[in-house]
Amino acid sequence: MNEQRSRADQRAETSARIVAAAQEEFAAGGWAKATIRGIARRAGVDPALVMQRYGSKEKLFAAAVLPAVALDDADTTGHLAEVLETRMRALSPATEALLRSAPTAPEAADALREYLSERADGLVRAWRDDAEGPENADDELRAAMIVSSILGMTIARHLLGLDALARLDRDAVDRIAAPWFAALTPPDTAGLSASGPGQTDAGPPRRSRSAR
Amino acid sequence: MNEQRSRADQRAETSARIVAAAQEEFAAGGWAKATIRGIARRAGVDPALVMQRYGSKEKLFAAAVLPAVALDDADTTGHLAEVLETRMRALSPATEALLRSAPTAPEAADALREYLSERADGLVRAWRDDAEGPENADDELRAAMIVSSILGMTIARHLLGLDALARLDRDAVDRIAAPWFAALTPPDTAGLSASGPGQTDAGPPRRSRSAR
Repeated sequence: MNEQRSRADQRAETSARIVAAAQEEFAAGGWAKATIRGIARRAGVDPALVMQRYGSKEKLFAAAVLPAVALDDADTTGHLAEVLETRMRALSPATEALLRSAPTAPEAADALREYLSERADGLVRAWRDDAEGPENADDELRAAMIVSSILGMTIARHLLGLDALARLDRDAVDRIAAPWFAALTPPDTAGLSASGPGQTDAGPPRRSRSAR
Repeated sequence: MNEQRSRADQRAETSARIVAAAQEEFAAGGWAKATIRGIARRAGVDPALVMQRYGSKEKLFAAAVLPAVALDDADTTGHLAEVLETRMRALSPATEALLRSAPTAPEAADALREYLSERADGLVRAWRDDAEGPENADDELRAAMIVSSILGMTIARHLLGLDALARLDRDAVDRIAAPWFAALTPPDTAGLSASGPGQTDAGPPRRSRSAR
């Protein structure tokens, strides 16, 4: 019984090591450069064991990287300042793997687009819950601009090493990013996504859906 | 004499075909997936000829893709709305090659960071020429946020296929993006980068460099 448990534990521990190694390998060089051999080397196991457990590079990528796109509600409904500050500070290996792989691996691009779409939809839902007027035809576009901008800043900061963005700390987020988010927030919502000054009077006049 | 000229013309024509083929190949799969063999196939020439002309994949990348980062003044000094609208509409093969390669090829990442830095510096120079007060310690950060955001929207639109961004046309740029740029423009410049409403009163109080 005990031996059985210990074996299961050992198996789980090895799987966890392989997943962590895969995240590192995909983060280091993106999808195209990652190899089962390289992942096995990082995990300290035989390549045959990696294949036996995960079957293919595609499936290991799905197991190790794609779950990273799961969202909790706090991520989508207005805590943009927190999201931005967290992204500027650090990048998890799974997220880095996704960002490095997305431009060339279709499955990673799909996962990243899905993630951005879900976050944008969450913003739109939050704005609409909050709005008093009719639906705004621009809501989806505004939300897509916000989440894509955070994506771009994350890539520029961590993958390209654009130094100036390292200074986007908590203080700068409040001072600069909050009014910037507010400028993209539909004008008749209550500035849900921002906590800085100028959040209620920024933005152009609202248009109804029929005006398009 | 004529034969000589015709040979030189032929040589130039072949080089142009190889460069165009390299842009397509690097755009299709990024740096890691591109091969001399694949480029030669696209150009309809022998791989040995490609090697003879360019020496290596690295050098061909430098010849075909890196020159795309050259900037003209109009790009840096305030025409953000035009840049954004152009980026949303189409992507040149050279730019696509750079964006797909940057996350995994250090030479492409360096070139892209250099490009973003130059554009950000151009914005800062334009703001300072325009400003009446002292230099703003946040200028570089604000400029980096703007250029990185345009990068993120370009990646999300063209490499990931985030549909909502396809609606960011000229009209939407004036309506939505101009006030958004204005919110990132230092408060005591004259809204150089924006043409929409709300451009002069957006943004937080200015701080001097010594306040940091």
